Amino acid sequence: MTLPAQVRLVEVGARDGLQNEPQRVATAVKVELIERLADAGLTTIEATSFVSPRWVPQMADAAEVLRALVATSRLRPAISLPVLTPNLKGFDAAVEAGAQEIAIFAAASETFSLKNINCSITESLKRFAAVTDAASALDIRVRGYVSCAVICPYEGTIAPAQTASVVRRLHDLGCYEISLGDTIGAGTPAAVQRMIEACATVVPLASLAGHYHDTYGMAIANIYASLQMGMNVFDSAVGGLGGCPYAVGAGGNVASEDVVYLLHGLGIDTGVDLDRLLAAADFILGHLGRPPASKVARALLARRAAAPRAEPR
Amino acid sequence: MTLPAQVRLVEVGARDGLQNEPQRVATAVKVELIERLADAGLTTIEATSFVSPRWVPQMADAAEVLRALVATSRLRPAISLPVLTPNLKGFDAAVEAGAQEIAIFAAASETFSLKNINCSITESLKRFAAVTDAASALDIRVRGYVSCAVICPYEGTIAPAQTASVVRRLHDLGCYEISLGDTIGAGTPAAVQRMIEACATVVPLASLAGHYHDTYGMAIANIYASLQMGMNVFDSAVGGLGGCPYAVGAGGNVASEDVVYLLHGLGIDTGVDLDRLLAAADFILGHLGRPPASKVARALLARRAAAPRAEPR
Repeated sequence: MTLPAQVRLVEVGARDGLQNEPQRVATAVKVELIERLADAGLTTIEATSFVSPRWVPQMADAAEVLRALVATSRLRPAISLPVLTPNLKGFDAAVEAGAQEIAIFAAASETFSLKNINCSITESLKRFAAVTDAASALDIRVRGYVSCAVICPYEGTIAPAQTASVVRRLHDLGCYEISLGDTIGAGTPAAVQRMIEACATVVPLASLAGHYHDTYGMAIANIYASLQMGMNVFDSAVGGLGGCPYAVGAGGNVASEDVVYLLHGLGIDTGVDLDRLLAAADFILGHLGRPPASKVARALLARRAAAPRAEPR
Repeated sequence: MTLPAQVRLVEVGARDGLQNEPQRVATAVKVELIERLADAGLTTIEATSFVSPRWVPQMADAAEVLRALVATSRLRPAISLPVLTPNLKGFDAAVEAGAQEIAIFAAASETFSLKNINCSITESLKRFAAVTDAASALDIRVRGYVSCAVICPYEGTIAPAQTASVVRRLHDLGCYEISLGDTIGAGTPAAVQRMIEACATVVPLASLAGHYHDTYGMAIANIYASLQMGMNVFDSAVGGLGGCPYAVGAGGNVASEDVVYLLHGLGIDTGVDLDRLLAAADFILGHLGRPPASKVARALLARRAAAPRAEPR
């Protein structure tokens, strides 16, 4: 089977990652992190989230972060900086700060939707319709997320057709891309493939992305299985930052370094420089004062510290 | 593509794992660990190594461990307990202690062979011929290992044909199964598949096993890729114990819990009870005083500690 020749990575460390880290990070550090990620070759970098600081205090500086990034000359126009907007209030604030791409998020599980965003799936999509209408009027691109696309911590396995129906509704709302989240990281390759297969019958495969958490150590295998289905966009977080605070025992997003290592090992082009990505991981983990969740980062940093020896190719 | 319906796991935690842990473990703890692994449903459990205690002090009690296991009634005859024997001296000691299966180990890389076992590949195989002859005379089964089957820390990528030639020679020496080691865990799925493909042209695929380290977080994806080639025997270590002390920055063997989680998620039968396996991991990690290298163990133990909630199926 032929794997895609190129993959685009959507870097979510600065939002999905930092949002789920216990300590706050200074605005300037967030901005420098995102600039470093852009310098490493990432072209889609989720910048922040325009949610209530009551719920997510880590993102209280959303407008400052986005304004600084829009102002800086180091970020080339080819780089997209989507921001999460749960409602019109968030959307308006995002636009005012210069957003050119936003993201909205629904769940494939009714129980998770109720517990996470306090309304049914249908109600959440109704709310988002107001946002996507407003975005459309301003030519702002919208990316969609579906959480619990494979397994829900409350309901267990989610039927692929259920996930596909939410994907279709997000597509109908105008999302150019829909990111399929294995939110608790409990999915395995065959289940992920069945889910993608169902979604690709209702929207084009090219509009689907994989967003896998590595809680059970399955994310890299799930990405490999998704590549075999032809999927070529994946979300990941530098250093393996973050996780989902609503899922018990949940680890973080799959680490960008691990995904890049896999893809380059498979001969797939990402446009990302692994050394610069590692340096960006080092930078933010130093500020957080914690070791990387990325095995590639741990292995390569240990190797470099130990001996100036040729790395395996 | 059809995956195998059944997989046999070769548990290497008590040998390859503990051999590479810095602290020593009491003989009685090793014996109890192996009994717990047998109770969890594992049928091939590497018990110890009859090497010089000067080189591997962690295995100085090899004879005591094996004798205790042979004596105990809890281990059913269907369970195989291979032990490593680098030479005739080790072989004789193993037989005296009751060994019914042994393992020998060569490298696919000349440089690694020289640095690890102090002789060329050809010299190492000559030495092993004396061991396999003696084993054959006593009807003792022999398993073979090939380290650096994909990548060598000194030479870089190893040509698949080079690995295959060592595999063929081990097969000719009478090894019923040959375990292909990604010793530094730097391999990715396509390279692993190319290596297996080359080996399966010189010996039956059914006589090959995968032995992957998780240093770069690729082991589960490499096992998935190997399953797709039809491989159905894999080595793993409970709790992700151990690693290779000769490879800089090397993490340990892939964790048995993670492999079982993957396989059961794929609907593949292993005969292993994940709960009992987790309990065995907890037991040995408690003695070592360190957290599991297994993400499945971390996730499930955290989940159980947090809330009595139904687990995702």
